[in-house]
Amino acid sequence: MQALPSPLQQLINSLARLPGIGRKTATRLAFHLLNSSDEESKELSEAITRVKHEVRLCNNCFNFSELELCTICNDKNRNAAVICVVEDSQNILMLEKTNEFRGLYHVLGGVISPLDGIGPEELRIKELLGRLENIDEIILALTPSTEGEATSIYLARLLKPQGVKVTRLARGIPLGSSLEFVDEVTLGKALQTRNEI
Amino acid sequence: MQALPSPLQQLINSLARLPGIGRKTATRLAFHLLNSSDEESKELSEAITRVKHEVRLCNNCFNFSELELCTICNDKNRNAAVICVVEDSQNILMLEKTNEFRGLYHVLGGVISPLDGIGPEELRIKELLGRLENIDEIILALTPSTEGEATSIYLARLLKPQGVKVTRLARGIPLGSSLEFVDEVTLGKALQTRNEI
Repeated sequence: MQALPSPLQQLINSLARLPGIGRKTATRLAFHLLNSSDEESKELSEAITRVKHEVRLCNNCFNFSELELCTICNDKNRNAAVICVVEDSQNILMLEKTNEFRGLYHVLGGVISPLDGIGPEELRIKELLGRLENIDEIILALTPSTEGEATSIYLARLLKPQGVKVTRLARGIPLGSSLEFVDEVTLGKALQTRNEI
Repeated sequence: MQALPSPLQQLINSLARLPGIGRKTATRLAFHLLNSSDEESKELSEAITRVKHEVRLCNNCFNFSELELCTICNDKNRNAAVICVVEDSQNILMLEKTNEFRGLYHVLGGVISPLDGIGPEELRIKELLGRLENIDEIILALTPSTEGEATSIYLARLLKPQGVKVTRLARGIPLGSSLEFVDEVTLGKALQTRNEI
């Protein structure tokens, strides 16, 4: 490994820190970047910088956004009386792909997980409660893990006394899986057959 | 997909252009970078830029290097009378890991492949011929594909008349493998070149 120039070694180290990228893949990617055109590597390098500088959180739903309000919250054609609560922005992407949902979202920022030191205060629950005016329905679309289930129940107990209908995704989702690995059809069906808690 | 801020979409596009990285992985990585610390993403972005600016090719063997000569060519403890010819720099890394070779390398830059428009002129063959002084042995360590074999034979025909010993990596059954997973051609070669225990 001493055969490698130190900038190359550093690039491999940086790449290997990414999730799901092992040392072998990192090495392959680093050599690819070294061999690639100046434009390609420059584009990637700048895209990484730009994403950190130009992407912020939506003031309303906490989705990633370029402006104060994200494109979904800004869309007048969407049904602002229905909010779908998700763990993170990536889940919005998956739900949007189903084309089954025309309401707004709320990014919770995780689920309650005492073992990881994440209590209700660490999540955007207060912000969700602040959005209940003129809301007909809250759909809980959290990961079907133990923590996700517990968080759904916690939220339902908080929200129901406010007179809002609370539903969650139907049990079409395989338990123990992560939302991002569920195919679009299953996810769409689960949205259609959501039921009241 | 319109739900994504354009810098994020661009980062996903850039990442998806890397070899072996599909759209799903690219999306996961982009979200990871967005969620990661400023230092982590800055480090990666800068490492990509640095590798392109600070890494050049060794004047002698065409391995990647920070200086005019790479660390291997600069190493006085190595046997400068033996040159191992490889396709690209990444192969040097693999051979170095074996700790079995203490000579120098020569990076050919590919193999002869008429279908891809790569003839002998596109490779660093002239540069190899220019290094033959005081050389005892040239080891050909090219990929055992049809193109690699053809290139090895081509090089052997060029080099032997110069009075230099030309060898190539042994063909045979990979260690730790089971006979039933070895293809017939390899097995046939292994039989032909069997050696006494």
